[in-house]
Amino acid sequence: MTVSVPSRGDIEAAAARIAGHIRRTPVLELLHGVGDAPGRVTFKLDLLQPTGSFKARGAFSRLLAAHPAPSRVVAASGGNFGLAVAYAAAELGMAADIFVPETSPLAKIERLRRIGASVHVIAGHYAEALEASETWVETNEALFAHAYDQPDVVAGQGTCGLEMSAQIPGADTVLVAVGGGGLIGGIASWYRDDTRVIGVETEGTPTLHSARRAGGPIDIEVGGLAVSSLGSRRLGEIAWEASRRWIDDSILVSDEATAAAQGWLWDNCRLAVEPGAATPVAALLSGAYVPDPDEHVAVLVCGANVDPGSVVSG
Amino acid sequence: MTVSVPSRGDIEAAAARIAGHIRRTPVLELLHGVGDAPGRVTFKLDLLQPTGSFKARGAFSRLLAAHPAPSRVVAASGGNFGLAVAYAAAELGMAADIFVPETSPLAKIERLRRIGASVHVIAGHYAEALEASETWVETNEALFAHAYDQPDVVAGQGTCGLEMSAQIPGADTVLVAVGGGGLIGGIASWYRDDTRVIGVETEGTPTLHSARRAGGPIDIEVGGLAVSSLGSRRLGEIAWEASRRWIDDSILVSDEATAAAQGWLWDNCRLAVEPGAATPVAALLSGAYVPDPDEHVAVLVCGANVDPGSVVSG
Repeated sequence: MTVSVPSRGDIEAAAARIAGHIRRTPVLELLHGVGDAPGRVTFKLDLLQPTGSFKARGAFSRLLAAHPAPSRVVAASGGNFGLAVAYAAAELGMAADIFVPETSPLAKIERLRRIGASVHVIAGHYAEALEASETWVETNEALFAHAYDQPDVVAGQGTCGLEMSAQIPGADTVLVAVGGGGLIGGIASWYRDDTRVIGVETEGTPTLHSARRAGGPIDIEVGGLAVSSLGSRRLGEIAWEASRRWIDDSILVSDEATAAAQGWLWDNCRLAVEPGAATPVAALLSGAYVPDPDEHVAVLVCGANVDPGSVVSG
Repeated sequence: MTVSVPSRGDIEAAAARIAGHIRRTPVLELLHGVGDAPGRVTFKLDLLQPTGSFKARGAFSRLLAAHPAPSRVVAASGGNFGLAVAYAAAELGMAADIFVPETSPLAKIERLRRIGASVHVIAGHYAEALEASETWVETNEALFAHAYDQPDVVAGQGTCGLEMSAQIPGADTVLVAVGGGGLIGGIASWYRDDTRVIGVETEGTPTLHSARRAGGPIDIEVGGLAVSSLGSRRLGEIAWEASRRWIDDSILVSDEATAAAQGWLWDNCRLAVEPGAATPVAALLSGAYVPDPDEHVAVLVCGANVDPGSVVSG
């Protein structure tokens, strides 16, 4: 299989496509870094996007790249990507069919319906919902949007890197959460060799880590605190190509460190962040990643689809 | 009594004093405004300050303006100002005595103690705690910091306006929540006649509204959803002088509209905001303030000291 990572031109084109549909999310420079970790830290607050995560970038990028414009789109996701596709479709006047595993919380299903999506609840887990969506699209005229392994989706996520490089000039390192790898694939495709890009996952969702150890994406068992947002069973092929070429390291953090990072983000920044999106802060707070004293670390805070009451530390 | 509002020079001097101690908080431009309200809306996210509100600005400004530097400071507040003074004192190596009414939640008292403050719990309400702190300081060597009616405090809050005027150029209108008036006093002292400044309060905490009707600050009964942050019994004298000269209007919103604004802010921006700080968004969402279609409204989102689980709409 030939896989191509987005070029910087592809990412710039995606940015032009989605302008006016997504927010140019702001950055927040911390005064004293994160906890006792050395280094200077700036947060990119992409959790402030419509639908509460960076996924709106890739969804709009995919839907707006198709010519002629589709009247119907389909995606499999019980989480942030499904929400983003449903929202983008509604904004663009398209119908959306979202396939979700039966394990999805009812609240998420109802939120999808409120946005106007047709929700298909499928027995099993994400893999079964994905398979059902792929079968469905064979006999229905609709544009299929993959959560993390299509060029237009990855180019859309890369627009976050484009913004960061302008908003946080001189960053030495970018820390990014990794699930299927659409976000880090886009970020690394933007930064390339200019800046160190490091992926952070929980021990229960190590898709990038496992791929780097095995020499390529492999199916893994996933579980734990961050499974609902980072719990892809394997890394995407585009992300793997980006990893091979540009991703500098992969770091694992525990569920406990992740929950502590959620508490820290609320106590110190009043940000209510979902577990998956708190992993880069967990890496700093737990010492899993120790910057140099003069290092400037850009931390992508990428999602807030969480019961906000759950983020407060005990 | 002679009251002087801060000059722009005073506010610039405060900004220089507190630089390095407070965050230059970012702004977020919305794509479609707030709800169905016309106009363009940009949020100033001062809820991202250390201790979760703009109050850190005034606290640092007051503590750093005193020469020689005090070794001990005292303030009366069971809420955001107490937290900010305790934090600023700890950062600057000063002792802090915070007088709180017995009605303060235990969680807030414990947070003050964790920061290192000596907490004095006083029978009665805020007025009694304030009186006790004023008596105490007569026989103890300490710098007294008033929550909203000292020039250095108001100049500190004005630094938020200084930042906004650079970050949101061309804003036609600034909407600001009002309690004792320290924030709006500082904001109006910065903007002066350049931009319309409008205060927003709940019907249960109408200090500015009552003062404007009566021709001067008057004692009022306060209550309702926003009482813990906006529930001063009367408007400060500095705020009144700013109101007389520059504040263009005063708007009241219901508790219901305020709670709906909290829900809107979470659903659409993933911001967990305290009731008092949600009042400007409530004004837009409820139609209590209707911008012109081509009006650019700057909305100060000024505090997040709230149980984050309480912001979700039902």
